[in-house]
Amino acid sequence: MLPPFPMLSDISPALLHTLYLVAIVAEAMTAALSAGRRDMDWMGVCIIACVTALGGGSLRDVLLGHYPLTWVIHPEYLWMTGGAAILTALIAPVMRRLRSVFLLADALGLVAFTVIGCQVAQLMQLPITVVLISGMITGCAGGVLRDVLCNEVPLLFRKELYASVSVVTGALYLGGQSLGLSANAAVPVALAAGLALRLLALRFNWQMPKFVYRDDWD
Amino acid sequence: MLPPFPMLSDISPALLHTLYLVAIVAEAMTAALSAGRRDMDWMGVCIIACVTALGGGSLRDVLLGHYPLTWVIHPEYLWMTGGAAILTALIAPVMRRLRSVFLLADALGLVAFTVIGCQVAQLMQLPITVVLISGMITGCAGGVLRDVLCNEVPLLFRKELYASVSVVTGALYLGGQSLGLSANAAVPVALAAGLALRLLALRFNWQMPKFVYRDDWD
Amino acid sequence: MLPPFPMLSDISPALLHTLYLVAIVAEAMTAALSAGRRDMDWMGVCIIACVTALGGGSLRDVLLGHYPLTWVIHPEYLWMTGGAAILTALIAPVMRRLRSVFLLADALGLVAFTVIGCQVAQLMQLPITVVLISGMITGCAGGVLRDVLCNEVPLLFRKELYASVSVVTGALYLGGQSLGLSANAAVPVALAAGLALRLLALRFNWQMPKFVYRDDWD
Repeated sequence: MLPPFPMLSDISPALLHTLYLVAIVAEAMTAALSAGRRDMDWMGVCIIACVTALGGGSLRDVLLGHYPLTWVIHPEYLWMTGGAAILTALIAPVMRRLRSVFLLADALGLVAFTVIGCQVAQLMQLPITVVLISGMITGCAGGVLRDVLCNEVPLLFRKELYASVSVVTGALYLGGQSLGLSANAAVPVALAAGLALRLLALRFNWQMPKFVYRDDWD
Repeated sequence: MLPPFPMLSDISPALLHTLYLVAIVAEAMTAALSAGRRDMDWMGVCIIACVTALGGGSLRDVLLGHYPLTWVIHPEYLWMTGGAAILTALIAPVMRRLRSVFLLADALGLVAFTVIGCQVAQLMQLPITVVLISGMITGCAGGVLRDVLCNEVPLLFRKELYASVSVVTGALYLGGQSLGLSANAAVPVALAAGLALRLLALRFNWQMPKFVYRDDWD
Repeated sequence: MLPPFPMLSDISPALLHTLYLVAIVAEAMTAALSAGRRDMDWMGVCIIACVTALGGGSLRDVLLGHYPLTWVIHPEYLWMTGGAAILTALIAPVMRRLRSVFLLADALGLVAFTVIGCQVAQLMQLPITVVLISGMITGCAGGVLRDVLCNEVPLLFRKELYASVSVVTGALYLGGQSLGLSANAAVPVALAAGLALRLLALRFNWQMPKFVYRDDWD
C-alpha cells in the first residue's frame, strides 16, 4: 500500500535525527540554566546538562534492557551537551532574553524524544502500553532527573501539560500506524500535533486538573 | 520429606500472587495521596503511583540484570496502578477515613513484595545475603522512590520499623527453608510473622534507635 | 617494552584492591555521619552507607550493562559497609575528631574508584570518552545518591574540586598509557597525582568557578 505522505515519510528518519540533535542541545542548555539557579560550579553544570539531555533515553534503555546505551555508542553526544552547557554559562545574559526559543526547542525535544522512545520499544516488539511508556520515559525522565538532582519537586508533575503531550504524541504515532500509515509517515503527523498541543498549552496555560489533598495522618 | 503445612504450601503461589495484586493497588493509592499532598496534577499522580507500586521490583530487576521487567511482561499492571491512583483522587474524601485499611494493605504489600523479591534472587541462585537484599529492595525501594520524587527525606529511614520488617520477613522465609520447610511452606510463615511485626510496630510505635549526629565540619 | 616502574606496576592490582576496600569503608563511615545529621534510624544509616559506598560502581555497571554487579559477586562488601556504618554510629563522638582522617580516606576512595571505573570500561573496550565517564561515575555517583536520599543538593556540584579530580585522575591514567606506560604502571601515577590535587583543593579551598544565574521566567 502506498503511504499517504510519501515525501514526508522518506525524510522521517533524517528529520527525527536532526530534531534529536537539536533537542539534546536544547535540553542541555535549559538544564545549565537550572544548575545556574542553584549556583552550581561549571563541572556540575556539565553533569546536570548531560544527565538531563541523555538521562531519559538512558533510563529507558536500562529499564528495557536495551544495551548499549546511546551515549556509549555515540560519546560525541556527551561533548555536544557538555559544550552546549558551558556555552550557556558563558553567554547567560543573552540566554535570558531567549526564553521563547528555549521553550520551542524544549517542545521539539519532548515530541522528538517521545517518538524515538516509541520506536525503540517497537523494534523490541514490546506491548503497545510499554511502547507508550517508553516514549514517555524518553521524553520526560531527563527533566525529572534534573529536578531531583537540583532538589526540587519535579516540574513535570505540577505545571503545563508536558507528560500528557508525550502520551498524546505517542498515541498519535501509534494510532496513525493502526490507521494504515507507515511508521515513517506517522512520525511527522505525531510530531506536528504534539508540538502544537505543547505550544498551545504554554500559550494558554493549559494544565491538567490538580489533585490537592490534605489529611492529618502523620 | 512431607512439608509440614501441605495445604498452606499448595496455595502459596496463588496467595502470593493475590497479595501482590492487592499490594500494587494499595501502594498506588497511598502514593496518590502523597502526590495529592504536593498538589500534583493527575498525570503526576498516575506516574508517582506507577513508580511507587512497580519501582521496587523494577530497581531489583535492573540491579540483578533480571530482564524483562515485570511491567514489560504485564503492562496491565500499569493500568491497574494508574487506575487505582485516579480512583483515589476521585474519592479522596472517602480515602481520608480509611487510614487503617491503607496501613494494613501497605503492610501486606511490604511482606508480599519482600518474599517475591527473595524468590527472584533464589531462582537466580544468588548468595543468601543478596537474596535478603533483593527482598528488601523489592519491599522498600518503591516508597523511597516516591519520597525522592516528592522531594522528601525518605520516610523509610525515619519512622516505625519498615525496612527491618522486610529483613525479618526475608530471614524467616530463608530460615524456614534451612530448617526443612519447602519454599512454598515457608511463605505463609514469613508473611504472617512479618505482617504481625509491622502491625505491632505501628500499634506501639516501635522504632529503631536513631543515630543523631551533629558536628561543625562544614 | 619494559614498563618504566616495574615494581610499582607489579603491585598495582593489589594496591588498587586494598585502596578499594579502604575506600568503601571510608565512604560508608562518612555516609553514616550524613545519615546521623538527618536523624535517621540505624537501618537507614546502614542503607545509606551501602548505597553511598557501592552505589557509584552499581550505577556504572547498570549503565554499561556490566553484570553481575560487584556486591552480587562479593556480598561480603555489604556486610563490611553496613558494619562500618554501625561502628561509626556507636563511636560517633570519636569520629567527630577525625575529620582529616575521613577527608584523606575519602580522597583515596575518589581516586581509587575512578581508576577502577576506567579499567572496567577499558576491559569492555569502550570509547575513551566513555572510559573517562565510567571512572567519574564510579568515583562520584555514590556521594550524589547519598545527597539525593538525604534530600540535599548534591555537594559534588557546589564545593571544592571533586568531580574534576576524578576527571583529571582518569585523564592521567589514560594519558600515561598513551605515553607508553603499561596500564599497571599508570595506576600509581594517576592515583598519586589525583590524591595530591584533591588534598591541595581541600587545603586551599580550590573551587571551580560557579555559574550563578537568575531570571524571572517562572
